[in-house]
Amino acid sequence: MAAAAEESLRKALADKQSAVDNQGNAVRALKAQASSKPEIDAAIEALNRLKLEKAEIEKKLQDCISNGGTDGSINREAFRQAVVNTLERRLFYVPSFKIYGGVAGLYDYGPPGCAVKSNVLAFWRQHFVLEENMLEVDCPCVTPEIVLKASGHVDKFTDLMVKDEKTGTCYRADHLLKDFCNEKLQKDLSITADQAAELKLVLATLDDLSAEELGAKIKEYGITAPDTKNPLSDPYPFNLMFQTSIGPSGLSPGYMRPETAQGIFVNFKDLYYYNGYKLPFAAAQIGQAFRNEISPRQGLLRVREFTLAEIEHFVDPEDKSHPKYSEVASLEFLMFPREEQMSGQSAKRICLGEAVSRGTVNNETLGYFIGRVYLFLTCLGIGKDRLRFRQHLANEMAHYAADCWDAEIECSYGWIECVGIADRSAYDLRAHTEKSGASLVAAEKFSEPKEVEKLVITPVKKELGLAFKGNQKMVVEALEAMNEKEALDMKASLESKGEVDFYVCTLGKNVAIKKNMVTISKEKKKEHMRNFTPSVIEPSFGIGRIIYCLYEHSFYMRPSKDGNEQLNVFRFPPLVAPIKCTVFPLIQKQQYEETAKSISKSLTAAGISHKIDITGTSIGKRYARTDELGVPFAITVDQQDSVTIRERDSKDQVRVRVDEAASVVKGLSEGLKTWEKVWSEFPHHILPTSADD
Amino acid sequence: MAAAAEESLRKALADKQSAVDNQGNAVRALKAQASSKPEIDAAIEALNRLKLEKAEIEKKLQDCISNGGTDGSINREAFRQAVVNTLERRLFYVPSFKIYGGVAGLYDYGPPGCAVKSNVLAFWRQHFVLEENMLEVDCPCVTPEIVLKASGHVDKFTDLMVKDEKTGTCYRADHLLKDFCNEKLQKDLSITADQAAELKLVLATLDDLSAEELGAKIKEYGITAPDTKNPLSDPYPFNLMFQTSIGPSGLSPGYMRPETAQGIFVNFKDLYYYNGYKLPFAAAQIGQAFRNEISPRQGLLRVREFTLAEIEHFVDPEDKSHPKYSEVASLEFLMFPREEQMSGQSAKRICLGEAVSRGTVNNETLGYFIGRVYLFLTCLGIGKDRLRFRQHLANEMAHYAADCWDAEIECSYGWIECVGIADRSAYDLRAHTEKSGASLVAAEKFSEPKEVEKLVITPVKKELGLAFKGNQKMVVEALEAMNEKEALDMKASLESKGEVDFYVCTLGKNVAIKKNMVTISKEKKKEHMRNFTPSVIEPSFGIGRIIYCLYEHSFYMRPSKDGNEQLNVFRFPPLVAPIKCTVFPLIQKQQYEETAKSISKSLTAAGISHKIDITGTSIGKRYARTDELGVPFAITVDQQDSVTIRERDSKDQVRVRVDEAASVVKGLSEGLKTWEKVWSEFPHHILPTSADD
Repeated sequence: MAAAAEESLRKALADKQSAVDNQGNAVRALKAQASSKPEIDAAIEALNRLKLEKAEIEKKLQDCISNGGTDGSINREAFRQAVVNTLERRLFYVPSFKIYGGVAGLYDYGPPGCAVKSNVLAFWRQHFVLEENMLEVDCPCVTPEIVLKASGHVDKFTDLMVKDEKTGTCYRADHLLKDFCNEKLQKDLSITADQAAELKLVLATLDDLSAEELGAKIKEYGITAPDTKNPLSDPYPFNLMFQTSIGPSGLSPGYMRPETAQGIFVNFKDLYYYNGYKLPFAAAQIGQAFRNEISPRQGLLRVREFTLAEIEHFVDPEDKSHPKYSEVASLEFLMFPREEQMSGQSAKRICLGEAVSRGTVNNETLGYFIGRVYLFLTCLGIGKDRLRFRQHLANEMAHYAADCWDAEIECSYGWIECVGIADRSAYDLRAHTEKSGASLVAAEKFSEPKEVEKLVITPVKKELGLAFKGNQKMVVEALEAMNEKEALDMKASLESKGEVDFYVCTLGKNVAIKKNMVTISKEKKKEHMRNFTPSVIEPSFGIGRIIYCLYEHSFYMRPSKDGNEQLNVFRFPPLVAPIKCTVFPLIQKQQYEETAKSISKSLTAAGISHKIDITGTSIGKRYARTDELGVPFAITVDQQDSVTIRERDSKDQVRVRVDEAASVVKGLSEGLKTWEKVWSEFPHHILPTSADD
Repeated sequence: MAAAAEESLRKALADKQSAVDNQGNAVRALKAQASSKPEIDAAIEALNRLKLEKAEIEKKLQDCISNGGTDGSINREAFRQAVVNTLERRLFYVPSFKIYGGVAGLYDYGPPGCAVKSNVLAFWRQHFVLEENMLEVDCPCVTPEIVLKASGHVDKFTDLMVKDEKTGTCYRADHLLKDFCNEKLQKDLSITADQAAELKLVLATLDDLSAEELGAKIKEYGITAPDTKNPLSDPYPFNLMFQTSIGPSGLSPGYMRPETAQGIFVNFKDLYYYNGYKLPFAAAQIGQAFRNEISPRQGLLRVREFTLAEIEHFVDPEDKSHPKYSEVASLEFLMFPREEQMSGQSAKRICLGEAVSRGTVNNETLGYFIGRVYLFLTCLGIGKDRLRFRQHLANEMAHYAADCWDAEIECSYGWIECVGIADRSAYDLRAHTEKSGASLVAAEKFSEPKEVEKLVITPVKKELGLAFKGNQKMVVEALEAMNEKEALDMKASLESKGEVDFYVCTLGKNVAIKKNMVTISKEKKKEHMRNFTPSVIEPSFGIGRIIYCLYEHSFYMRPSKDGNEQLNVFRFPPLVAPIKCTVFPLIQKQQYEETAKSISKSLTAAGISHKIDITGTSIGKRYARTDELGVPFAITVDQQDSVTIRERDSKDQVRVRVDEAASVVKGLSEGLKTWEKVWSEFPHHILPTSADD
């Protein structure tokens, strides 16, 4: 809708502009002809009217671009700034090596960020590794070149780069083109509807452009280096891996791994053995990955070092059912299949089971993981209406992939890919088999032998030896290497003509094969097993991206009690909250402090992370401080033998005996009890009017 | 004692050798003189007797070297081989990238190893971070050069290397010298006691040798390249950091961090703020670190990538007391202070509190962490008699360090440094202040202002301007920069002589300062605070080394029931065990399998890692398989409404109701209940004679 409105406004603006131009000409003509003053005045008045009308259309178009075209980018920016300010001020994260000016794309997680991350990872282990009995591994980041040659990263893991031809500063070519198009679309009201449509097309197809196409567009639009306006080089590929050298000789190149998956693939044989030679099974790995981004931006979303959590689920390509599939089949959530994207529709709520049975999702196992990822993300606190599963378009997917869905989360930067769930077929295991020579296959033993028809080619070596002497071996090998069609053709020719010309590539010539030199037959054989390369279904989680989106989804502001300021709150569920509970004596009084310390001890013993704050700051300020860290519960010591427990979002409080306080908070923190339950079980604490919360 | 015996045996052997030589000469002389046969026979008999006696001494010496000098190295090797075989076969760890031939010094943790590691880290977080309210951070591995310039790693983090002059193969110079000395001492019985003593001295001082000294020794002993016997280059330093380049320009060198500590130091300001500008506080970090070892050996003990867990406890250098010190003061364990090492004694049990009060341990905070490390390691299952805290000798310590103790664990490779606990004084913060210009200091507000005497230098700018014109500024600065002694000397001279020569370095010459040009006085001032650079006490844990030692300390063998084979067991405490429990139906029977599955579900819900094994293998074999993984408990379904729970080491079993099983195992696994308690509460299950356990 917004696009159509924008288009018609651009057209109206162009029309109005030419009307203004025409009228301007008319005024000038009248003046030149020294027409009468009333005539000239009337023409000028008409011109001014047209200019006013044009200004009005311009304003509408500007509004339309700001609100529609980019979904309220001004509000988004302001919201993001509020979140990021809070996150940096409270040390959820900070730019790394700040005292040395920082390094783009590297961030430190401070205490609350680190706690959130470790909670997210612990839940990931519980939800995936433990629940599914996955085989977790832990492999090094330093990786020898040959492994990443096999995986294709050495040759293909690149972004296109351009250089400022004078200063040598590097830029990502697609970023420059993207920025140019966006800027033009948002700020240049003079472009025509057709020009706008072309820019939008460029934006939509940005990821598909070759180096040559990108270079041509950059030239066509006259894009220059953003800082200096110098001309730019042609785009060329830059490998995104951090390179290093293993050992002292300088002869063993290595890289910091760009993903954790390869560590699992190269261990397939051992893991298959560990699993008792049974399929399917999944292996998982959590660890650091590295990408030497050309020019990182978007804060935590595009960084040079990040934590990945990856699963490789190995499965028989002929049976991709999943035993626990029924547990997720009835889930319903936003899905964005390929067809809807191609036909310009938007994501819609679809029942997962239906998507699988209709074939929109390729198979049950892929569907199962989509469902599990949905549950994982929503349990963390990702909003259901801002999470969608988008299927890759045909041109986005690697040629070997059977199907691929991204869990995308909407944040102030737009829809961000946070989890990729791909059926990569047998590609990775085959690539490593080819490079290493190790056979990475699985075997299925048949419950009873199966009868199969097999082609049998038996060269008669004696006859071949007589005929070809020293070349016998090459001829034998060539005969044995025939495929089924070639062999059956030869059989037919030999039967009809008794002799046939046969090209032996190792000899580089034809030889004459006679009937007595080879027997070709189809025989029935009993087979007890089959060997195959397993398919792999890979859910891959960008932990930092998930956490950043979680921050945005959890953040809100509410007025302080006196209404004088806006207070920041993170509504983290207890599962995620960096600290589960704070303990405050209401006022500075020795007895209260001692009670607070004893409750703190019980919480430590129960393994509940908490903070004790015995400063004399007003209780309202202390609450506000911890709301900003997303601490869900606060225990306030305000009486001799009882305390209050406050819930962060409702600000409701209940009164609990001192010796019960730790166990109530433990139950709440570990999800064994809801706040509603606690609210119904304990007496409510009504705030005295003097309290400043 | 062993050393003394060895020395006297070497002397006896040398004496006997010369007796043999003398007697041999005597025999030859008699023969040359054509003496009588009986005379010659008697001399030969004496020679043979001497040779026999020599052989006996050789045997004793060999025994002494094998058992005493190197503490039963043969048994150690066999034991290590048994442990390592089990670890690799059960995928606790395997060499990384095995299908590509592996890379020295890189290992993968397979499923059980990964679980052990994650249990050790979780306990570390609980024991240190949570219990002490430490500020955990998470910083990148990729580190810009300037940070590691400041820390000294770029210039000094090196090992001495020699190269095979023909093939270019690299070796660690000290390793070659060490191997040579050990080999000589163990296998060459002909060396004299003096020569042996010299070799031992070289071994003891190996770490202190300069490149020149190492090179001289290598030349003196004629050491050549081990594989080719080619000559070796002179030793030269090789930096152990993996180098890389940050960003696309190639102009920003970076390294993979060799330790995690620097990430904490550069964040000191933010962390101090986060802690409400209060000292002491500790920050902690768990993460990967990298050392590009020249030629890694000793399996998991010397690797190129490893997990470190480091604590930086920031403290006022004038007050290194610790509020919780009393909780560890009465601990008693093996300590090995500097003096005992220098005087050739061995480690002995010392009460920590006494070591601190006697000043053996420099301060309370250092002592507190030594105690906490002791508790941490022994809770994991490290044997108390194979753990010692060894103080660094003066020459081992960095010049700035106040005191340093290593937690060393004895394993088949000897005593291995697994945790270093150092009082690094203010060195690191000062180094980063100097390099970055950021002031990394703390402030103490006095409860009441303190009166201090301060030197005040007030140049009289008008007079100086008249006298020095354009040079006035330089003279003023030079006057203000005087230290106390210089200023008081000037004051005295001015008072006595009225004028004084004063060297201004920025002018490169003396100027004449007169009495009216400057006033110098000592004034009493009230100060409200002091600024200082905090000291840092750093406990640094090599997680991989701790885990490897834990494997050795936990491993034992016991005969199978039929006595035909030795079965491997890891006696991990539940805290560490990779899997807490297995669930077995005794026989393949649908009802039992369903019960097993329902128990498995309850265990999953309770967050207890477990494995269900419904194969038809005999129960004895299934127990043996899981004993080898160190699984502490097994639930066997052998009746309709009850199961047995078996404890791994005692092999005792109790009978428990089906619906209680999961919660009993949860209690045991989380350390809420001991096996003794369970044994006393539930009926014992007596094995029927047919059971094959």
